[in-house]
Amino acid sequence: MFSIIIGFAVDGGFPLLTTFAFVLGATTSIISGYIGMKVAVYANSRTAYSAINKEDGLANAFKVAFRGGAVLGFVLTSLGLLNLAILIYAYEWLYGDDFSKPHLYECIAGYGLGGSTIALFGRVGGGIYTKAADVGADLAGKVEAGLEEDDPRNPATIADNVGDNVGDIAGMGSDLFGSFAESTCAALVIAATSSELAADQGYMLFPLMISAIGIFICILTSFAATHIMKVDTEDKIERTLKFQLVISTVLLTPALYLASIYLLPETFSFEGFTDVKSWQVFVCLICGLWSGLIVGFVTEYFTSHAYTPVKEVAASCKTGAATDIIYGLALGYLSCIVPTICLALTIYFSFKLAGMYGIALAALGMLSNLAISLAIDGYGPISDNAGGMVEMIHLSREIRKKTDALDSAGNTTAAIGKGFAIGSAALVSLALFGAFITRVKMTSVNILEPLIFAGLLVGAMMPYAFSALTMKSVGKAANEMVEEVRRQFHLMRTNEHYKTEYDHCVAISTRAALKEMIIPGVMVIFTPILTGLLFGEQAVAGLLAGILVSGVQMATSSANSGGAWDNAKKYIEKEGLVPKSDPHFKDIKAAAVTGDTVGDPMKDTSGPSLNILVKLSAILSLVFGTFFVNYGSLLISRGNDNTNTDTTAPAATEGTQATL
Amino acid sequence: MFSIIIGFAVDGGFPLLTTFAFVLGATTSIISGYIGMKVAVYANSRTAYSAINKEDGLANAFKVAFRGGAVLGFVLTSLGLLNLAILIYAYEWLYGDDFSKPHLYECIAGYGLGGSTIALFGRVGGGIYTKAADVGADLAGKVEAGLEEDDPRNPATIADNVGDNVGDIAGMGSDLFGSFAESTCAALVIAATSSELAADQGYMLFPLMISAIGIFICILTSFAATHIMKVDTEDKIERTLKFQLVISTVLLTPALYLASIYLLPETFSFEGFTDVKSWQVFVCLICGLWSGLIVGFVTEYFTSHAYTPVKEVAASCKTGAATDIIYGLALGYLSCIVPTICLALTIYFSFKLAGMYGIALAALGMLSNLAISLAIDGYGPISDNAGGMVEMIHLSREIRKKTDALDSAGNTTAAIGKGFAIGSAALVSLALFGAFITRVKMTSVNILEPLIFAGLLVGAMMPYAFSALTMKSVGKAANEMVEEVRRQFHLMRTNEHYKTEYDHCVAISTRAALKEMIIPGVMVIFTPILTGLLFGEQAVAGLLAGILVSGVQMATSSANSGGAWDNAKKYIEKEGLVPKSDPHFKDIKAAAVTGDTVGDPMKDTSGPSLNILVKLSAILSLVFGTFFVNYGSLLISRGNDNTNTDTTAPAATEGTQATL
Repeated sequence: MFSIIIGFAVDGGFPLLTTFAFVLGATTSIISGYIGMKVAVYANSRTAYSAINKEDGLANAFKVAFRGGAVLGFVLTSLGLLNLAILIYAYEWLYGDDFSKPHLYECIAGYGLGGSTIALFGRVGGGIYTKAADVGADLAGKVEAGLEEDDPRNPATIADNVGDNVGDIAGMGSDLFGSFAESTCAALVIAATSSELAADQGYMLFPLMISAIGIFICILTSFAATHIMKVDTEDKIERTLKFQLVISTVLLTPALYLASIYLLPETFSFEGFTDVKSWQVFVCLICGLWSGLIVGFVTEYFTSHAYTPVKEVAASCKTGAATDIIYGLALGYLSCIVPTICLALTIYFSFKLAGMYGIALAALGMLSNLAISLAIDGYGPISDNAGGMVEMIHLSREIRKKTDALDSAGNTTAAIGKGFAIGSAALVSLALFGAFITRVKMTSVNILEPLIFAGLLVGAMMPYAFSALTMKSVGKAANEMVEEVRRQFHLMRTNEHYKTEYDHCVAISTRAALKEMIIPGVMVIFTPILTGLLFGEQAVAGLLAGILVSGVQMATSSANSGGAWDNAKKYIEKEGLVPKSDPHFKDIKAAAVTGDTVGDPMKDTSGPSLNILVKLSAILSLVFGTFFVNYGSLLISRGNDNTNTDTTAPAATEGTQATL
Repeated sequence: MFSIIIGFAVDGGFPLLTTFAFVLGATTSIISGYIGMKVAVYANSRTAYSAINKEDGLANAFKVAFRGGAVLGFVLTSLGLLNLAILIYAYEWLYGDDFSKPHLYECIAGYGLGGSTIALFGRVGGGIYTKAADVGADLAGKVEAGLEEDDPRNPATIADNVGDNVGDIAGMGSDLFGSFAESTCAALVIAATSSELAADQGYMLFPLMISAIGIFICILTSFAATHIMKVDTEDKIERTLKFQLVISTVLLTPALYLASIYLLPETFSFEGFTDVKSWQVFVCLICGLWSGLIVGFVTEYFTSHAYTPVKEVAASCKTGAATDIIYGLALGYLSCIVPTICLALTIYFSFKLAGMYGIALAALGMLSNLAISLAIDGYGPISDNAGGMVEMIHLSREIRKKTDALDSAGNTTAAIGKGFAIGSAALVSLALFGAFITRVKMTSVNILEPLIFAGLLVGAMMPYAFSALTMKSVGKAANEMVEEVRRQFHLMRTNEHYKTEYDHCVAISTRAALKEMIIPGVMVIFTPILTGLLFGEQAVAGLLAGILVSGVQMATSSANSGGAWDNAKKYIEKEGLVPKSDPHFKDIKAAAVTGDTVGDPMKDTSGPSLNILVKLSAILSLVFGTFFVNYGSLLISRGNDNTNTDTTAPAATEGTQATL
């Protein structure tokens, strides 16, 4: 239905082009997510089964879980790339002469929008689904009834395990697929304005080549993980996973250098930027690539209980839940510093060297080892659910210990994945912002313009409003789940033959996720569109910048606070702080569980959902950009405000001065 | 010492002018704070004493507490205004002909900087002081030893009560004094660039007239509170306090209209903005004035337990501390929407109608009933501490009930005061930003410039880094306090004649406050200065905008989450949710106390400290502006980046296009 609206709203001789691209993007994302989840479910039981083997159970279980994740990574990246390439060739072949190149590639932006719309469902809906089940299962099962995690008597267990798949596989996959599709589209839209690049199809498709090279390198790297490095002890698990990221980054650096030198003209220009040399393109790519790695490791530092920050949070549990929360929040806030500086440097250099094209390439650079990141990310829920199965079919503690070790490594790498997703979302959104500016033909975004500053301020507020909605959604849905679990526990106690009705809990999560995502979804989609319609493209420009700079911080701090609370709890459970015999152990653990429960919606619902807010609002503005210019600005008279959109030099300068 | 640095760094023929203005501003703030605290301490015991009277004890106690607060309000505003006027006349008389007007008024900006530097101590240091004592006293006394609030056996009680005075009277006073001084200075700096305004001293000093009119109206209003409205029942207390704000706002509206029409030339122009009509000035003023009132009432809606949001938070305590925290955080995030939109509208209209001068006037309009806001704000800690005295000298429950009623109304109005302080800080900071832009002669702040966007992103991160530091400071200092209280409790148990050593706890708070404020203080002061020195004025412009838009949201949400948790706890204690006989009452209350403890540093330390971050970084940039232009930008070569600072039209346009 939404695609029909797009079909009507986006002008141009062939509105169906954007619509078709949209549908293709959405379908690709759904298919990849579906395959990823199918394989994950299959890999769950195989991982659990492999762990039974005494001798090399751990090594085999690791291999299975990692390969299960790798399916998601490679299906998603290669399918995404293939469909995009087919789309471009088809459009070129069908309409190549009827259109100007920039317009043609703008239609292809629909592909990115399609991917991102699915990500809205995957991240926001999926996030609500998984955390409603998780928080509900914990509150009713663990806290009230005193059951262990994954106890089969807890009716919400299945919903919780399904949620892990939905949130971490489908959600993460669609989010990163969206980033990949959008950054490629943004790069294409900008490249189409360059006469040198547009002259040769090979030059034009350079952004797609980056991803293709990335897939190739990732295949090599994952081969190393499953064939060369042998995971025979527990501490090797996490190291192997992290090495994957490092190896792929190191291998990609020279590969990207060769690509930039050989696949691009020596110098080229595009609208608003002249004389880009091919080495400058390379610098943009590796800025993105390496800052992705740094952001990942900083995230690990702040969320793994091997380092001081989480240990400090764990120690603060001694004085109760309140200090745990205070320290955890402070940790999250503090963890924004380095990633923000990394991003700022990447943005500065890419911007400086190759304008908005540079930003889009930095995003693609960061995403070039996407297949590996997704493999690592998918690995987490697979080993988590393998553990669940071991528990549910009552296998020995020995085996559960193995899957626990696998799961614990997955927690840390999941945090790395989140940092990576946020960083790429920021770059992608900035690239889309740049494409939007190019499309609506603004020459500057001067925050001394009243409308732009007001937009900036309101934009900075959006992540707060959005997080408020998603966090409360989880709370509401979890409450419903608690009621249902209590009802079933009551029946269980009164009737010995009562069989746990897992499906009821699954139904509650599904219904809650769909119902509760409506308001945030409407907000994400309509805020930029209405702003453009009522106040014109200047207000949208301010809004997007505000959402971007404020959303990145909030997403980072939410994800890391949540990750830190989770691992602080794990650290305490592993007797890292005090032994179980200590009289205070129970109180300390209770405080840590409170922190973890607060962190659950922050790290898995509201935080990751902000990626979607940041990206979706930007790509919507890009797709509807021309529409805003033609029909927008209903409330603000055009003559006064938009002197800046006038591209003739003296008018632009006057407009700027008049509002200073 | 800092004033010496300023003396050296700020160029101009007579560097001592800025230094002297700085010292005068700082001294005025200190004296006002000192008088305010002295009178508050005096009013505490008088309020407690007045409450003893059976017949009209409540009415008299209210009158005394309100008048005590009013002393702070009127001393601060009138002394601030008087000293500023004296300073301006003295400089005009001494150096009138040696300087251009704009330069002379830039030296006067030192006055605002002085006020804000003291606010750094008052808010950050004071905030750490008061919450270290409060959290420490609660954790060790209330939670561990089971004592009541303000029990004299708790050694941290005195430190807690002193802290209320330091944080709420000295801190709030210096914060709002800073806003007042800075917005006046910003208005003067901009007005000095107008030939029409600078021609007549009367026109120039229009910003001071606004404040003078405000003081006059506030005197009338406070007369109504103490003489016309009789506070004889409990529910009248809060209404009377709120009416004060409404009455002063309503009275000020026509007064400001007359002032703008008669005290300004019919039309005038200033640098970068032409043809401002006097009615436009009036619109700016009332936009500020009324949005202050609206922000206040929205804050009340989200933090008073008379309305749904806090009731929802209280109800969420039924499922434990975790849901309490989740709902409270979500509430704080949600509460940003309306204030931000109010601010955005005010900024849009003021900006549109009278440029940066309009923004400065909007800030002054919001602050025109400052004397009443401060009176209401000072009223809170006075009645709080009066309650403390009643408890400590073992007066009857009947009397304590009266002071509790006074205190509870004070809590709500304190939240209103905080909203007001944040709103005015945002406008003031924007006005200072405008003055900075004027001073460094930038013609546009185009976020498509790499350096500006990077600055914007890093700026948006600053409030997070700053909050992380201040929140952890409270945690650390509170831990020290807990240890000390435990030590004394131990001595008390072993030795019957042991006398509680209150002074040790006061010393701990004082030492901790001074020690822990060093890092945040250094960060606030040196970030803009170093940014300017290393990357030039463009990066500073981005940084300031980022700090502003992100800081406002974070300050609002922290203050309101904290206020909501506090009042949710009060609501539960008053048996609003379940009666005390309910078996779950104890658990529910424990959850609410956890929420309140988390909220304490957020609402009284990290949140209000952000006002200082927002304002101080802006005024520092203003004062050091010329210095950045002359000596700054060490790391970035000037030629490439600062084409935009070139004021000739074609160059500016080229610069903009080149980086698009």
